[in-house]
Amino acid sequence: MGSSFPAHLEELMAGLRQLPGIGRRAAERVALALLERDAEELRRFGTLIAELPEKVTRCPECANLAEENGLCAVCKDASRDHSLLCVVETVSQLLAVEAGGSYRGRYLVLGGRISPLEGEDGSGLNFNLLERQLGTGRVKEVILALSSDVEGRATTAYLAEVLRNFPVKVSRPASGLPAGANLSYADGATIAAAFAGRIDVDKKDD
Amino acid sequence: MGSSFPAHLEELMAGLRQLPGIGRRAAERVALALLERDAEELRRFGTLIAELPEKVTRCPECANLAEENGLCAVCKDASRDHSLLCVVETVSQLLAVEAGGSYRGRYLVLGGRISPLEGEDGSGLNFNLLERQLGTGRVKEVILALSSDVEGRATTAYLAEVLRNFPVKVSRPASGLPAGANLSYADGATIAAAFAGRIDVDKKDD
Repeated sequence: MGSSFPAHLEELMAGLRQLPGIGRRAAERVALALLERDAEELRRFGTLIAELPEKVTRCPECANLAEENGLCAVCKDASRDHSLLCVVETVSQLLAVEAGGSYRGRYLVLGGRISPLEGEDGSGLNFNLLERQLGTGRVKEVILALSSDVEGRATTAYLAEVLRNFPVKVSRPASGLPAGANLSYADGATIAAAFAGRIDVDKKDD
Repeated sequence: MGSSFPAHLEELMAGLRQLPGIGRRAAERVALALLERDAEELRRFGTLIAELPEKVTRCPECANLAEENGLCAVCKDASRDHSLLCVVETVSQLLAVEAGGSYRGRYLVLGGRISPLEGEDGSGLNFNLLERQLGTGRVKEVILALSSDVEGRATTAYLAEVLRNFPVKVSRPASGLPAGANLSYADGATIAAAFAGRIDVDKKDD
């Protein structure tokens, strides 16, 4: 079937198939849809992709996405609380916290977690940025908001150890039942965490 | 949530969302995945998209996809039967027939069907290419393999009328039960078509 496609289109579909969630059929559908666009639109869209590395860079302070080597939107925002620093693995996690809308501190995007099995011994992570942030003396609390899987917990433990050398409070997000959850549908690990971390009923929620 | 993305990335995601099967979340995932690629790879991929209009063109004989203004793979193939011409609406339909592997004639990609509701009165379709193919005098049979929905049937009827003026046989693919199908799972319209077009059991399949 593929043999009927021009080579250029085959190469485009191969590139599309490497994207998450795009299989062989979807790549074909997307490629044929692109062919329907007019030349100017395709040039614009292609240029957006080709110029990504220059236009979208990492914030020199927190490694969040930023524009053309500038600070990211969070670090630029003077109203953010510099005494709170939330450490996340990825930009997606940062976006999820931002979407929550309640956190007003700053971030540090680690760029992954320590995972010897995946060949990440930590040398590729942004520990240097973390130390630089702590070096400013403005940070009072570090919230370790990494994944709660094995590697995430190991990285959290490592960071907690490192952070002992700094005069900061170290915390992590509470584990427990999601907002509005019904106990009937919660998994065992979540129930265990929620029961272990149970709080007195007369304690005021803040 | 989106407000945290650099403008360049927002624009890229807007472009991705216009592709078939890619919603807001998928566009975000794809954009973040692209950011992980190295600069050279992104330049190559972006260029593939930007250069689509020059590199992938339409075959001047049948409107199938072709490379840089040349003939398409089917029209280039001297072994194809020039006496058979299969009219399809889209390149996808052509690919589906090719995937079948049994058809050895040539094609004519109409580029759509007559659909007054969608603003297509036929002026945007490749009727001129069809007449040019018929003008060669080599075509003996035209197979109208358009969709079997209302617009497809209307276009088929229109073409059949036009083709009366040419010394060619006009046919359409048989309707009936799909190969290997079980009557229990067939829909009513398919069963009706299969019964209406029933064939004598002693007739040899060719």
